[in-house]
Amino acid sequence: MTSSVLEKQVSAFRELAKKIVSYGHTLAVLDWDMRVNGPSKGMESRAEMIGIMSGEHFKLLTSKEMEGYLADLIEPDTLASLDPVTRGSVLECKKEFEKNQKIPVDRYQENVVLTTQSATVWEQARAKNDFAMFRPYLEKVVAMQIEFIDYWGKKGDNVYDTLLGHYETGMTVSQLDKMFGLLREKTVPLLQAISNSAHQPDTSFLTKFFDEKQQEEFGRRIIAKLGYDFQAGRLDRSVHPFCTTFGSRDVRITTRFDPHFFNMALFGTIHEAGHAMYEQNISPDLFGTLLGTGTSMGIHESQSRFWENVVGRSRPFWNHFYKDLTSEFPTQFADVDTKQFYRGVNQVKPSLIRVEADELTYNLHIMIRYEIEKGLINKTYEVADLPEIWKQKMSDYLGIEVPTDKEGVLQDVHWSSGLFGYFPTYSLGNVYSAQFLHTLKKAITNFDEHIENGEFTPIRSWLVDKIYQYGKLKSPNELLQDVTGELANASYLVEYLENKYKSIYQL
Amino acid sequence: MTSSVLEKQVSAFRELAKKIVSYGHTLAVLDWDMRVNGPSKGMESRAEMIGIMSGEHFKLLTSKEMEGYLADLIEPDTLASLDPVTRGSVLECKKEFEKNQKIPVDRYQENVVLTTQSATVWEQARAKNDFAMFRPYLEKVVAMQIEFIDYWGKKGDNVYDTLLGHYETGMTVSQLDKMFGLLREKTVPLLQAISNSAHQPDTSFLTKFFDEKQQEEFGRRIIAKLGYDFQAGRLDRSVHPFCTTFGSRDVRITTRFDPHFFNMALFGTIHEAGHAMYEQNISPDLFGTLLGTGTSMGIHESQSRFWENVVGRSRPFWNHFYKDLTSEFPTQFADVDTKQFYRGVNQVKPSLIRVEADELTYNLHIMIRYEIEKGLINKTYEVADLPEIWKQKMSDYLGIEVPTDKEGVLQDVHWSSGLFGYFPTYSLGNVYSAQFLHTLKKAITNFDEHIENGEFTPIRSWLVDKIYQYGKLKSPNELLQDVTGELANASYLVEYLENKYKSIYQL
Repeated sequence: MTSSVLEKQVSAFRELAKKIVSYGHTLAVLDWDMRVNGPSKGMESRAEMIGIMSGEHFKLLTSKEMEGYLADLIEPDTLASLDPVTRGSVLECKKEFEKNQKIPVDRYQENVVLTTQSATVWEQARAKNDFAMFRPYLEKVVAMQIEFIDYWGKKGDNVYDTLLGHYETGMTVSQLDKMFGLLREKTVPLLQAISNSAHQPDTSFLTKFFDEKQQEEFGRRIIAKLGYDFQAGRLDRSVHPFCTTFGSRDVRITTRFDPHFFNMALFGTIHEAGHAMYEQNISPDLFGTLLGTGTSMGIHESQSRFWENVVGRSRPFWNHFYKDLTSEFPTQFADVDTKQFYRGVNQVKPSLIRVEADELTYNLHIMIRYEIEKGLINKTYEVADLPEIWKQKMSDYLGIEVPTDKEGVLQDVHWSSGLFGYFPTYSLGNVYSAQFLHTLKKAITNFDEHIENGEFTPIRSWLVDKIYQYGKLKSPNELLQDVTGELANASYLVEYLENKYKSIYQL
Repeated sequence: MTSSVLEKQVSAFRELAKKIVSYGHTLAVLDWDMRVNGPSKGMESRAEMIGIMSGEHFKLLTSKEMEGYLADLIEPDTLASLDPVTRGSVLECKKEFEKNQKIPVDRYQENVVLTTQSATVWEQARAKNDFAMFRPYLEKVVAMQIEFIDYWGKKGDNVYDTLLGHYETGMTVSQLDKMFGLLREKTVPLLQAISNSAHQPDTSFLTKFFDEKQQEEFGRRIIAKLGYDFQAGRLDRSVHPFCTTFGSRDVRITTRFDPHFFNMALFGTIHEAGHAMYEQNISPDLFGTLLGTGTSMGIHESQSRFWENVVGRSRPFWNHFYKDLTSEFPTQFADVDTKQFYRGVNQVKPSLIRVEADELTYNLHIMIRYEIEKGLINKTYEVADLPEIWKQKMSDYLGIEVPTDKEGVLQDVHWSSGLFGYFPTYSLGNVYSAQFLHTLKKAITNFDEHIENGEFTPIRSWLVDKIYQYGKLKSPNELLQDVTGELANASYLVEYLENKYKSIYQL
């Protein structure tokens, strides 16, 4: 290609990518509005709108036009001649193009229908505690995933690697087996020791009455101090909390309130604000490209969990904020000191439901799902056996009995929608967050002191500098390597958990 | 065409129309969200998103695909064979197609740039009270409108008819001249008599302090009683009140509050609810077609003004609601009886600003704009002379001096954006509302009694039955003819205004 032809191609490619990004953000607005504002009678037509606009988005991603640009620009010499952002953008579009293009259209549509039905049946099956009802649908969803892996092509030693790669580029079964192996080896005995400890924290004060308006105001003050930019976002309410981006200058979060449980809103709000601060601080160079968002589910989750748990549930954090908290809720915390409060919000207790789990047991919940997914996709497990497998693993890792399937294998929506490979990213978030913390503490040696003084800017600036600004320009592995000097390593998480919880439970 | 080929064409056309409607509703969501929720830093990227999605919408409306369907389906025998909804939908698409297709693409884009600049300059010019600054832009905008009329083609005796037709299909200068002639002849002397009346209403109680939350709650109760369906819509706040539709099952309205002026929020809210009830009651048969919305600006405005003025500012309405009002605001209305309140909210007073004008003088404000637009488009007026023309007409019709251009010719945004032909629809709304009222009172003879009893269902049902359900399936003229037996006739408005205000001012 002559340079002027190349220039034209690049600029046309950029225009198309920008349009695709606009469709993505538009879909995010339609979805946010439905979940936050939508009047009940408008739901059906909104779902239809989202369906139509998703179709348009998909068409652009897989268009002949896109295929043409990619064919030209992916050529090695051409690719090498591009600036890094355009090059990254081409590679990201290529990845999305292939992911979507390789599935025959009829099978793609059949999968949409299947997963829609399956999600509906799952909801009923969970309500009725009836796994048998859901089983045939889940069998078809799993079979479809296995078929799709054939179209996409094997990406590593294990067929499941292909699915992992959709949520966490470069992640493999061999890495995860090692990580979860270490977590199992170290946290299962830690959990047993905790359960047997004579020093259980008091949590009774967390279930007193907390006015929702006051909870909301307190949460807003906290996340503003952490660095969530309210001029580039909003906090609203929804049934399930989430963070969504319409571009880095409009990143919205939602939360929910339980007037009889303090933890839910505050830590949920900080969690979503962690996601949002990542998105709000992506470099403007990446706007209008597919690189202008977080690089992976795992890295994203590392930031929500870093702010929620590493910062928000730390002792220095409450040394700083506890006075504010008690002046907001004086009667509720009348006889509770900072240490008691800190121990209370860090209670570890094996429980049935993943989304309610604490920082330590959470990974064990994920491990169970990971092992099951891997088994299903590799055909070493059968769907019919899942309820028993689930119960056995809950007993082995968490030491608790699962009384019903609705509190067991039926609890999560993910599988019904065909989301296989997604669950591990939740634990990767914990692994990465402890790994980043380890590096961060070497750079900012007075980390705890900053938090204790309510100075979050140095910490946030480090994260912006090392992680946030790059968006998807660096892959998760590149980012980990550049920031921490190694790939994912669960030993930092183990060390963090052991230090924290041995102290709390006086082990 | 064989019937199976025709069937396929029709179904493909319907799919495309449905997609176009979805883009329209999506754009409405993007716009609503920006105006109601948008964080300040997100405005720029939202404007870009709206620009990109508008481009996509425009492309579909003017696509080769659409051209092909229209060419086939518009053929007289084919058209006659279609069901009424599809036939109406074809004709509406044809109209939109031609309106957009006939302008050369480069001139269209130049106009977008021009009107964007012009609107920005207007804003500065108004702030600085500097008409000379705005003048060259307005001259270009007018010249562009005149050029566009050539592309669109002359639609009636007067070149201005083409512009009128974009907002009010079938409306002509000859009809408007007659209507405004009658209004001028009858309301100018009425206004003089009112101004000279010794019986001026007291309005001091309307400018006391009214808590915004209470105002909002009161407004919500009122419009729910009138029949606004909150399960198919929402009420929010915005700088300028508006009504927007994302389909008949999600029709949202906004309002604004002045804690020191009671009228603003309540009557504004009822006004928007009037627009919304029209949209909420369109027949589901029309969903997914371009017919699924109000038939014209004028008919739409007739409904907002019907509910705001004819119902909401009537004596029976306050006979019913005044007790509620005084229990919500007991101190503010302590010494005010129903009659005093009714007279207060119906005060007539010549003033400079259109959007603050009362029910009677409003039409005189519109008349001035209509005469100026007609003059500019017919080249009998020059832009340079507008400030003086404005002042002269304000003196002739309203009897007041205009001290500055920013309170005169620079007050409205419309012209800077190229909206010529739009203003008359505001007064058409008043004309139509009185005309519908005249017919309605023959069908529902105890009209006042229903209102006095808070029974709005019979009135709303009549409007749904005669007007709302049809959406754009009937043109404004068809609708007027079917409902009232005649075309637009301003004598009903004159009669309504004379009866109402002669009584209030004891003339």
